[in-house]
Amino acid sequence: MATATEADAMRRAIVLAARALGSTSPNPVVGCVLLDAEGRTLGEGLHHRAGEPHAEVNALRAAREAGHDVRGATAVVTLEPCDHTGRTGPCTRALIEAGVARVVYAVSDPTSDARGGAATLAAAGVDVEGGLLADRAAAGNAAWLSSVLHGRPFVVWKYAATLDGRSAAADGTSRWITSAESRADVHRLRAEADAVVVGSGTLRADDPHLAVRGAPPQRHEPVTQPLRVVVDTNATVKPGARVLDDAAPTLIAVAEDADTTHLPGVETVRLPRAAGAPGLDVRALLGALHERGVCSVLLEGGSTLAGAFLAAGAVDQVIGYLAPALLGAGPTALGDAGIGTIAQALRLDVTDVARLGPDLRITATPQASAFATAPAFANATEEN
Amino acid sequence: MATATEADAMRRAIVLAARALGSTSPNPVVGCVLLDAEGRTLGEGLHHRAGEPHAEVNALRAAREAGHDVRGATAVVTLEPCDHTGRTGPCTRALIEAGVARVVYAVSDPTSDARGGAATLAAAGVDVEGGLLADRAAAGNAAWLSSVLHGRPFVVWKYAATLDGRSAAADGTSRWITSAESRADVHRLRAEADAVVVGSGTLRADDPHLAVRGAPPQRHEPVTQPLRVVVDTNATVKPGARVLDDAAPTLIAVAEDADTTHLPGVETVRLPRAAGAPGLDVRALLGALHERGVCSVLLEGGSTLAGAFLAAGAVDQVIGYLAPALLGAGPTALGDAGIGTIAQALRLDVTDVARLGPDLRITATPQASAFATAPAFANATEEN
Repeated sequence: MATATEADAMRRAIVLAARALGSTSPNPVVGCVLLDAEGRTLGEGLHHRAGEPHAEVNALRAAREAGHDVRGATAVVTLEPCDHTGRTGPCTRALIEAGVARVVYAVSDPTSDARGGAATLAAAGVDVEGGLLADRAAAGNAAWLSSVLHGRPFVVWKYAATLDGRSAAADGTSRWITSAESRADVHRLRAEADAVVVGSGTLRADDPHLAVRGAPPQRHEPVTQPLRVVVDTNATVKPGARVLDDAAPTLIAVAEDADTTHLPGVETVRLPRAAGAPGLDVRALLGALHERGVCSVLLEGGSTLAGAFLAAGAVDQVIGYLAPALLGAGPTALGDAGIGTIAQALRLDVTDVARLGPDLRITATPQASAFATAPAFANATEEN
Repeated sequence: MATATEADAMRRAIVLAARALGSTSPNPVVGCVLLDAEGRTLGEGLHHRAGEPHAEVNALRAAREAGHDVRGATAVVTLEPCDHTGRTGPCTRALIEAGVARVVYAVSDPTSDARGGAATLAAAGVDVEGGLLADRAAAGNAAWLSSVLHGRPFVVWKYAATLDGRSAAADGTSRWITSAESRADVHRLRAEADAVVVGSGTLRADDPHLAVRGAPPQRHEPVTQPLRVVVDTNATVKPGARVLDDAAPTLIAVAEDADTTHLPGVETVRLPRAAGAPGLDVRALLGALHERGVCSVLLEGGSTLAGAFLAAGAVDQVIGYLAPALLGAGPTALGDAGIGTIAQALRLDVTDVARLGPDLRITATPQASAFATAPAFANATEEN
């Protein structure tokens, strides 16, 4: 039975893990806190990016650098310590060799090559307990879990709209519907995502840049720019589009028969068209991104692409930035999602409501999603 | 300088006043708490309806019935005590004759025939202080203050929509977008309003009843049914419409040239048509309702009528019930409000966000409204 101190340490470890969201793929985010027998923190660590040390190793190093003796310590870690040698050695060995007496972890490792860590630790005489705050830790690792369990990225659909659901005015103007605080928060979402996806309509209307600007608020770690993905079935993107600059990598997803001769040097991926609908096959797109190691996708629009994702059941979380404004006309935030009558409405569970300046940020999970019972993904990044 | 105990008593008096919202027009809602010298409550009272005793008199009676001596007491009251003889005697005289030593009130009475109460009390040797929690008390009396200061009712636009701003699915079905909790809350709003207004489109689509059903949650006082008003420019309402039953009074607002011969026995009011737009002149409608003693209007839809009210600058508060659902198609909650570009967006200030079952209730005030700085009208009904 984990102690209250261990639970506090786990909450802290979840916060630490979330600092590296968007930088660790294809690895999970992991945080670790080392406690002494009196429950005092000896050291903290997190996994920063693939190929670099794991959270447990960083926590052990931090404790030693602070002059602490880690023998007999308890390691509180958000994920079952790995038991395999990849680009770094197994964490189980590091913990055993350090003389750690107890390991408390949240989520069991479901991957075939890394799991078994708990058994290895127990066989070495370490007191092991799993499952502490597992739901919360799993939510913080939703992207990686989606990748390893479902073979596709975790998809967050972000939209910005007025209270009456408009994403722009009747003449197409939309700068700025939402506040500076909301726009900064979107940069945080981008920083936490492996890829940002928009449709060609949004590209034509807004010529968005999609890279992360500056240091987003609440972001402790250096930003890894997300892959910018344009769903551009007929390859209509113009060579001078801002999304094609060198601020971040860019991938243009086009139909198998699209003419891309006007885009030399631009990376493209050819995908099948959707059956019975305009645009590309959403599942094929997500499969292609998964193959590139993309664990999390931030879908930024527009309304047509969002409708296609929702119709495909490919949205795991919805984050709406609602501006306290009314327009009464203009494009809606969401287009056709194949819903004809109220009984087919896509129902969600609201997991978080926050005020961002004058705006509201509503986080919700589709009830049909694999992560329907998990608390808000985004929440894990805030220390509360 | 009012004491903390007096401020607590004022908060209580504001809650008491709100219990009679929807029943006192054309009078204000007023609450009163009598305190002894040690700050203990001797009695409480509120004004229930026009023609019945005022809050101060009810508080004095309650204190005496409880066996308390009210001489030397402090009366904490949400509105400056009246100084005139209407259907009841002046409250100033009742307080002076009772030997009340101090009167703390929130809002000064702006009406020409009742004001002057503070001066009368002071002249009689009573210690008088005004302005305590005036903003909050004014918000609780927004309907009456709108009526006496602006000569028109306070208008609350209520809508229900999905997160993407749809009030129904593509086939017109809408039962139920929002939860039972939200629908019960709408009945509370109706109970607090003097009149409920809908357009003929809503009447045709939904055949709504619009009366208050049962005892709304949080409602302590008996419900006075609101006047049901249908804005029906061309008198299209059918004789069998539910809104024409005898559960509550009903008024059909029609154009001056409308043919109402198919509606014998139905009360109608003839109003000018709007200039350059379909429908009736909104200001003329509100003027007609004001003349009938209506201080507060709950505008329930549909989207066209809401757009007309907003375009006329005739909405003082917006209450949106947002269901955590997405539709992607179907009618929007708000129709044309004459807004063509983002700079013309009607900006609001969010004053309250509440969870009602799975739904969110967002309360907001248009920044151009006379009541823009007042806290939420609806909040005053909750004890917190």
